[in-house]
Parts: sequence; structure tokens; C-alpha cells
Amino acid sequence: MMTQDSGNTLAIARQAFAHFEQGLATGDWQAFFELLTDDFSFWFPIGKFSGLNVGKARAIEFFSYVSEVYDQGLKLTVDRVTSNETTVVFEFRDEGLMRGEPYKNRVAVSFDVRGDKICGYREYLGSDGKSN
Amino acid sequence: MMTQDSGNTLAIARQAFAHFEQGLATGDWQAFFELLTDDFSFWFPIGKFSGLNVGKARAIEFFSYVSEVYDQGLKLTVDRVTSNETTVVFEFRDEGLMRGEPYKNRVAVSFDVRGDKICGYREYLGSDGKSN
Repeated sequence: MMTQDSGNTLAIARQAFAHFEQGLATGDWQAFFELLTDDFSFWFPIGKFSGLNVGKARAIEFFSYVSEVYDQGLKLTVDRVTSNETTVVFEFRDEGLMRGEPYKNRVAVSFDVRGDKICGYREYLGSDGKSN
Repeated sequence: MMTQDSGNTLAIARQAFAHFEQGLATGDWQAFFELLTDDFSFWFPIGKFSGLNVGKARAIEFFSYVSEVYDQGLKLTVDRVTSNETTVVFEFRDEGLMRGEPYKNRVAVSFDVRGDKICGYREYLGSDGKSN
């Protein structure tokens, strides 16, 4: 097994997070998708994608759905970034409209890095969608 | 402002997390409380403690309440630990009984370290309490 470098892991995850942020803001996820491994898996807390979702195709379906729900985009404020050799966690607050209604949340997303790509992602929610 | 050492931050947070885990398992929170600053604040996602809670007294009230709700204890499995100079995030799964009913969740907790104590804490939930 190749040992990963924590500096590279952080750089790759920051790049992916910038594309993630752009996806949430604009609905354009292409740059984010290009950084995902084919066997990418993600865990989401609630709703129709709750639990473990496996495969890049499933991720494309999910993020397209996210941009339908928040079709005017979400604005993020990153509060903290923590990391180790393989994983980077971003704590942020987001704000926007959810199907036209005011929406605010706190979120922790955890990206697993393998080589120069993101191979996994877990999302954790810090509020009920009404405060951050 | 004193620059913090990331090694010390990680060590303090790991110690606090061990006491946190013991508190969840046994209801004995004393060792955890001793590691909190007097101005400790925490953010919790849902329920009667949702949002920002300020002060160590409020924390004592909260964790006592937690051990009422999970009075037979919660068992934790830590999956990942990430950190920077001031903050350490623990991703874990927990399992037990919530007021007698089967309970499972995924959680990310983020501890802020100041000196040799924990000055803040944020909790994020990864499921609806039924799967992990």
C-alpha cells in the first residue's frame, strides 16, 4: 500500500471542496465529478439518498438532485478544516433557498483522498435546516 | 496570542474524547467536565439543546440529559480522526438504546482546544438514528 502524503491529501481535498462549493453555488458539478474515483462512495444522513451510496454514477444522480432542490444555489462559509494522511473534514455553514423557502444549516463533510482523487465522502448535519 | 502546537492539541482532544466516550458508556462525566474551560460552548443539532449553548454549567446540564436518554449507555466505534493546530474532529458510529428503543447513528464531533482544555464542541449527525 502506498503511503499518502498529508500535504498532498489536503491540497487535493481543498481543490475538490472548491469545486464542490462551485457546484452548490451554480449547479455546475463537472469539475467536482472529474475529481471522483469511479468507485467513489458517499454517505448522506437523510432523505432518498440516506445511508451508503456506491459508485460515481450514483454521485452524479445525487448532486444533480441537490441542485434541483437548491436551484438558486447555496452559499457556503467555511469555519474549520482538519486533516490527516487520508481524510480532510470541512466544517461550514450554508444558506440559501430550499425549494423557495429560506434554508440554513451547519455541515461537516469528510473527504477521503486516494492518489489525486476523492474516493469517499461523508456528510453530517449540524442543524434542522433552519439555523446555522 | 499564543500559538498552539498541533501535537498537544491532538493529545488533549484524544484525552477528552476518551472521557467523552466513558461518559456516554457509563453516565460518569466528571473526568470530561474537568477538561472543559469555564466558558466552554457547544452547538447541538436538534432537540431542546439545539443551537448554541454557552457555559460549562449548561454543558453539565446537557450531558446529564444525554445520559438520561441513553441510560444504558452508548457504545462508540471511532472511524477517523482529523486535526489542525486548534481543532480535532472525531468521526464515529454509536449504538445502544434510546429510551429503551434500538438506536444507531453516525456522528462527527469537533473539539476546539485552548491550552490544556476543551473550549468548544460542535456535534453533527450522520443519520436519522436508525442506521450507521
